[in-house]
Amino acid sequence: MTEKEKMLAGELYRPTDPELTEARHRVRLLFHKFNSLSEVDLEERQKILYQIFENAGDNLFVEPPFHCDYGSNIKAGKNLFINFNCCILDVAQVTIGDNCMFAPHVQIYTATHPLEFKARNSGKELAKPVTIGNNVWIGGNATICPGVTLGNNVVVAAGAVVTKSFPDDVVIGGNPAKIIKTIDNR
Amino acid sequence: MTEKEKMLAGELYRPTDPELTEARHRVRLLFHKFNSLSEVDLEERQKILYQIFENAGDNLFVEPPFHCDYGSNIKAGKNLFINFNCCILDVAQVTIGDNCMFAPHVQIYTATHPLEFKARNSGKELAKPVTIGNNVWIGGNATICPGVTLGNNVVVAAGAVVTKSFPDDVVIGGNPAKIIKTIDNR
Amino acid sequence: MTEKEKMLAGELYRPTDPELTEARHRVRLLFHKFNSLSEVDLEERQKILYQIFENAGDNLFVEPPFHCDYGSNIKAGKNLFINFNCCILDVAQVTIGDNCMFAPHVQIYTATHPLEFKARNSGKELAKPVTIGNNVWIGGNATICPGVTLGNNVVVAAGAVVTKSFPDDVVIGGNPAKIIKTIDNR
Repeated sequence: MTEKEKMLAGELYRPTDPELTEARHRVRLLFHKFNSLSEVDLEERQKILYQIFENAGDNLFVEPPFHCDYGSNIKAGKNLFINFNCCILDVAQVTIGDNCMFAPHVQIYTATHPLEFKARNSGKELAKPVTIGNNVWIGGNATICPGVTLGNNVVVAAGAVVTKSFPDDVVIGGNPAKIIKTIDNR
Repeated sequence: MTEKEKMLAGELYRPTDPELTEARHRVRLLFHKFNSLSEVDLEERQKILYQIFENAGDNLFVEPPFHCDYGSNIKAGKNLFINFNCCILDVAQVTIGDNCMFAPHVQIYTATHPLEFKARNSGKELAKPVTIGNNVWIGGNATICPGVTLGNNVVVAAGAVVTKSFPDDVVIGGNPAKIIKTIDNR
Repeated sequence: MTEKEKMLAGELYRPTDPELTEARHRVRLLFHKFNSLSEVDLEERQKILYQIFENAGDNLFVEPPFHCDYGSNIKAGKNLFINFNCCILDVAQVTIGDNCMFAPHVQIYTATHPLEFKARNSGKELAKPVTIGNNVWIGGNATICPGVTLGNNVVVAAGAVVTKSFPDDVVIGGNPAKIIKTIDNR
């Protein structure tokens, strides 16, 4: 397996691998440009946005600044709206459904490290995928942790720290996030 | 009622309304410029700052970067200090008293959405005002949610997620924020 | 005592002091430049980084944007990695050991204010040092509060708000942060 294949499989991989280093470099140049442009250059900004989000559906809008690790590991449906200062560490796959809304400062992390410091200092890392259903609204300053799956129509309260998975049609909030209420979406 | 009037009244409104779209565009160009200037250009930066904060008192200082939705819906008293990376979603009115201090990464949100996904996906939104008294100190990375009123002299602990209103002279903290202690301000 | 000496001693000091004002101005110009450069200018960016972090060991890497108050009050060991959007308010000393990793949006604050509004509005401030051991991994969007000491090999969970000190070899998380588990680092 290549280091990239290990990375996407959730195994320990070496981030200094040349292929991965080049991919991270590429997207950093792209979001540096994206983040530097104002709405005066909206057409160019949208073009760069779709170079960052290679696997996104129609009608994607992201308010800069935006940061990510690869971009190419984010798979997004149509009508995704991301507000200011979102960070997506897409080391493993991040899958986002249709019609999702992310408020400002939303953090989505797949990257993780061994808890034992000797293994952590080895330079090897690992990652767990994040999956977000359709029609999910993530509130401001919320943090989605590695390995989390959120069902369809979930609402994540502002400031929530989401450490585990949740089913469809619930409002979750707190640190760690718990179910606050069920939503009747009939 | 115009869409702007509905928005400020806390009713469902259509954000794609041309008047609102133009107002958001205007302030995005302003804070893009504000955020790009260093302290070498402090005089120009302060001039732009007062174009963003049309309704602010004397002695306003904001450390860039700063982001907001309209700017014109923020009413601030004198001596407001805002540290790095503050985001104020002033869709409804945000009222801030005199002598307030915001630490880095403070988030103030008035924007909200219906919990039911069909209503949320209609494209209509709504907002609830936030009111902050005099002499309020908001700690770093704290989040103030739509509809919250904070009394005078309140201290919000770092990282607090403030989901309801609180009276004068208290320290609040946690997620959701609760009263930690009362302050003797006699 | 000079105002700087009072500041570093944890006593009330006057931040408008000319020596302190000049030091804050200097580092703001430096991180404004640092934050504006892409990886195309990595060599220049690393040179500026070591002007911000005057007291850092070898192999420091910081993903921009980064913000701080002085820079000179941060003492860091070797192999420090800091991800996107970190803010360190180094008004008092911030001491960081070897081999530490900070995830995105980590906030480290030493700056604080009196709780009573009259004292707070006097313009005088104070600060408490933060000390972080060797091999510490701080998760994304975590907040480290003034006066905190973290032992060696500590892991801070994403979104944690750390309000007190913790010993070696523990995972801490929540708001306020508590010990979640002990790590066997033998």
